[in-house]
Amino acid sequence: MADKFISIRNVKFLLFEVFDVLSLSEHVYFSQHNQKMYNLVLDAALKLSTRLLHPIFEEMDRNPPELIAGQVKVHPAVAGIMKEFGQGGWISATFPAESNGEQLPSMVANACFMMFFAANYSASVYPGLTAGAARLIDSFGNEGLKKTYLGKMLSGKWQGTMALTEPQAGSSLTDIATTALPTADGFYKIRGRKTFISAGDHDGAENIVHLMLARIEGAPAGPRGISLFVVPKKRMNEDGNLVSNDITVSQIFHKMGYRGTPIAELSIGDKEDCRGYILGEPHRGLAYMFQMMNEERIGVGLGAASIASAAYYAAVHYCKQRSQGRRLADKDPASPQIAIIEHADIKRMLLFQRAVVEGSFSLLMQCCKYEDMTRVALPQETSRYRLLLELLTPVAKTYASEMGILSTSQSIQCFGGYGYCQDFPVEQHFRDMRIHPIHEGTTGIQAMDLLGRKVVMENGRAFALFLEEVQAAMYAARKFPALSPLVSQLDKAVKLLQDVTFQLVAISHKGPEVYLADATLYLEFFGIVTVAWQWLLQAVSVHKAQAGELSTAEADFYQGKIFTARYYFAYELPKISGLAQRLTDGNPMTVEMKSCFFSD
Amino acid sequence: MADKFISIRNVKFLLFEVFDVLSLSEHVYFSQHNQKMYNLVLDAALKLSTRLLHPIFEEMDRNPPELIAGQVKVHPAVAGIMKEFGQGGWISATFPAESNGEQLPSMVANACFMMFFAANYSASVYPGLTAGAARLIDSFGNEGLKKTYLGKMLSGKWQGTMALTEPQAGSSLTDIATTALPTADGFYKIRGRKTFISAGDHDGAENIVHLMLARIEGAPAGPRGISLFVVPKKRMNEDGNLVSNDITVSQIFHKMGYRGTPIAELSIGDKEDCRGYILGEPHRGLAYMFQMMNEERIGVGLGAASIASAAYYAAVHYCKQRSQGRRLADKDPASPQIAIIEHADIKRMLLFQRAVVEGSFSLLMQCCKYEDMTRVALPQETSRYRLLLELLTPVAKTYASEMGILSTSQSIQCFGGYGYCQDFPVEQHFRDMRIHPIHEGTTGIQAMDLLGRKVVMENGRAFALFLEEVQAAMYAARKFPALSPLVSQLDKAVKLLQDVTFQLVAISHKGPEVYLADATLYLEFFGIVTVAWQWLLQAVSVHKAQAGELSTAEADFYQGKIFTARYYFAYELPKISGLAQRLTDGNPMTVEMKSCFFSD
Repeated sequence: MADKFISIRNVKFLLFEVFDVLSLSEHVYFSQHNQKMYNLVLDAALKLSTRLLHPIFEEMDRNPPELIAGQVKVHPAVAGIMKEFGQGGWISATFPAESNGEQLPSMVANACFMMFFAANYSASVYPGLTAGAARLIDSFGNEGLKKTYLGKMLSGKWQGTMALTEPQAGSSLTDIATTALPTADGFYKIRGRKTFISAGDHDGAENIVHLMLARIEGAPAGPRGISLFVVPKKRMNEDGNLVSNDITVSQIFHKMGYRGTPIAELSIGDKEDCRGYILGEPHRGLAYMFQMMNEERIGVGLGAASIASAAYYAAVHYCKQRSQGRRLADKDPASPQIAIIEHADIKRMLLFQRAVVEGSFSLLMQCCKYEDMTRVALPQETSRYRLLLELLTPVAKTYASEMGILSTSQSIQCFGGYGYCQDFPVEQHFRDMRIHPIHEGTTGIQAMDLLGRKVVMENGRAFALFLEEVQAAMYAARKFPALSPLVSQLDKAVKLLQDVTFQLVAISHKGPEVYLADATLYLEFFGIVTVAWQWLLQAVSVHKAQAGELSTAEADFYQGKIFTARYYFAYELPKISGLAQRLTDGNPMTVEMKSCFFSD
Repeated sequence: MADKFISIRNVKFLLFEVFDVLSLSEHVYFSQHNQKMYNLVLDAALKLSTRLLHPIFEEMDRNPPELIAGQVKVHPAVAGIMKEFGQGGWISATFPAESNGEQLPSMVANACFMMFFAANYSASVYPGLTAGAARLIDSFGNEGLKKTYLGKMLSGKWQGTMALTEPQAGSSLTDIATTALPTADGFYKIRGRKTFISAGDHDGAENIVHLMLARIEGAPAGPRGISLFVVPKKRMNEDGNLVSNDITVSQIFHKMGYRGTPIAELSIGDKEDCRGYILGEPHRGLAYMFQMMNEERIGVGLGAASIASAAYYAAVHYCKQRSQGRRLADKDPASPQIAIIEHADIKRMLLFQRAVVEGSFSLLMQCCKYEDMTRVALPQETSRYRLLLELLTPVAKTYASEMGILSTSQSIQCFGGYGYCQDFPVEQHFRDMRIHPIHEGTTGIQAMDLLGRKVVMENGRAFALFLEEVQAAMYAARKFPALSPLVSQLDKAVKLLQDVTFQLVAISHKGPEVYLADATLYLEFFGIVTVAWQWLLQAVSVHKAQAGELSTAEADFYQGKIFTARYYFAYELPKISGLAQRLTDGNPMTVEMKSCFFSD
């Protein structure tokens, strides 16, 4: 049991009890699935994680990718992982049957990826990215592109990437400078540099397929002049052989964590012989890319929560095994030491980790459910789910990523000095975690997206829908008297969130700098309230389950859930008071602070 | 300037403007020092840091110690560092002249160690530990021990360590099992195992001198049966040669950070030939050890704040160099990108780091001042300073260590993806930082010390003295109208701290488990208020300075200080509301939570 990295019981609790994944089967698109099948899929994912991914969790960290003679060499297991993921249908899990997919709900497919990520984040990124890239081609590509790429990618033979970032344009996609020159032959000639490309080159796949943003020559400056291209590392020549497409790896980065996946800097078209194939319409690339980007943001949140899960179970296991100290009232040095999990401070640290892990998972599954609903809901309702998903994506990505740092840090703390050493996995979890508030849009970018765009879009409709969702959860919870303290606390929290939001929107006339100066704190505030809502939803499901007969193990599971929900409301939710104070004190000091006051 | 790791301007601000180190010269013990001399010492420390320590900051991380044939091999520079630190008088800096020391105030010596730690934490631990161990011998050793050890240690030839932790007794010193058997020859035969011994063995010193806790055979169980011994790796035989003293290194730990210093597990007396020399009286070892422990706790706080300082200056430098994006109101993609330090969110992140770094340094200097005062104050006043120092040691250690994790994490965030890579130093700072809430007593241990012992000792006298100190600062601040919002905010915060403290003490009759269940949160609360007091003190000094003529650079420095103080009060101090809510809600859920509810 020392190697437990996720609770499949919790995964099933979320899917079947909280989010009722079976209700999706009422819709034609998902009607071929049932509980038995979902259980088989989930159990298979756990087995695959345990057999294929987890055993090389440390090995991939200790033997990071190397750039040798222009080719990135990764852990030898990567090729097999891609193959098994392809053959097992894990890359195509959510693709429609007509694209040879399994047509699984996003909820179920992402629940499987939770397990993969928890077992070995770096290893799971290869197939995960490939799925996102393939979906872009499936969504926007013409038949020729689909024919050439989809089969190879979904079978795990070819790797997919997202190639946005450039050295001079990190978060500022407006400034993308890679160029695409149209040719008479239909393809474009691509030239430029891309950096921080995850899985941007490696020898575990036969080919790398970059979904790349570039600017067609003569296109308008700024975001409206960016197009999306399929740019393979190797292109098919006339006789069907793969030949170089003039992309070279100029460097790979040596990272603190997430070391099993290479992050490459690419030089594209140095010999003027790189061909790119446009996806969809010219100049609409950024909008297309955001399909994959939003999917990957949910993926980053899942990755973060999954890493925190693995660290949490390592900590639980250790705290049960490790004896140290006595009950505080026991002053007899001759009495035996007790397991450290009996100390209140340790239980507090573990409850914190569990609150973050299971709260994040719940919110992410909520997002996946909205995604599934956009696919099957009646036309007049799809915008509701799309708006909720758009609103909550930056929140879910950021809550899991930022809190994941604190959660894995507390996992280390549970181990004491041992947690700082490589003998235990938690130091790696802590290192692996730190990328998450950065990749696929930093926390600052997510915050501007939430407050600058999502909260105010369509006259605040997404925000209003969110409030409705929270109200509905409180309504359901009121049926259980034991939950009434939580309901009234959440009610106050949501009112405070509304107040703060309205006060902020009211100062937006002072210009975006003042309005958005503390957007990151607003996002933090929003995240805490949102996860409180998720804990209330979970508490309702627990109370429903507790009405029936339960085995000891089941009773313990539900008791743990309720304690964690109570922990969240007692320890985490109160953090919003301080944030609200700051967000409404109307002092734009960070705007006024001059850079020369920071002595260099 | 890219390699700036500390602001000597800020160091001098704290020493001369905030804490008036020159006032110590009114006392005979420090009367031979003056400002010119202090400046020489400080400038020399910075030069030494820049020349000797900082250039190998990364190298020591990339080439960690190795255990080869029973001997720990460290970076070849360590021997030279020990030698220079010995010869330069840095190890003996605070020792009295009669022990061949420089008789410097703790404030000045620790200000120098701030620079050493910021330049290269791992490298500075070797001399730092040696100083603490030597001081124990100086304080409690007989003439023979002083003669044999002090000279060698203060000259950097021999390394000192503190050897407390055992594999079966981490934080629980009560359970120390290493034994000491008296012999007719005056020495004791030592047997046992010690673990996590920093610099516990290495080839950069001729000998290692362990200050080791052990239990004399037949001693009572528990903390009252523990004695302190000097146990060298090599002992002097009759002809004056060093011979093995039967201590073997069973392993060294491979750590996430702090990799330049070896952490060893030692097997002592396997051949029944390890000699230990008792320090002071039998059975009083724990009390003696706490002299070094408390000194090292301040050292850990300094180390943490110093690492955060280095990461902060790396971030400031990067944010001034790196162009990305435009002012939010500027929608013209053709306009040039601006340095990211111009973005409010980046300024907020930098202000946070500066608030933590300079707030921590200030609190640590405050502790050092109390230490200096215990040495020179009138007899009736020394207990005042001793109590204040005892009360604030766990607060200063923990605030710097816990907030240092968040601060270095924000340094990484300022760099975006680059911060996660080894091309920049901040990822190492983040890794180096993570040990600080663990070593020399975990945060949980500090919390129990604060709430379980320090706050209530002598009927709350230390706490009352602390309140007096804060009142005095507020009194001084009231002379500056611009500071009145800060004063009234601190006034409320201190009242809230009193309320919370009294409410907690009132439930202590429910037993220590309930009373101390949230001691860690109480410590966090205490730390935030304490650092607010320090920022008010700094703000007072700024206002005094601003009354005079200032150069542009000086004016900018003080403006930055004031903005940082305002930042602290606007963004950090409000965090106490949520903590107070939790600490007074009277729900001992972490005590009630059963370990079986944590599914393993």
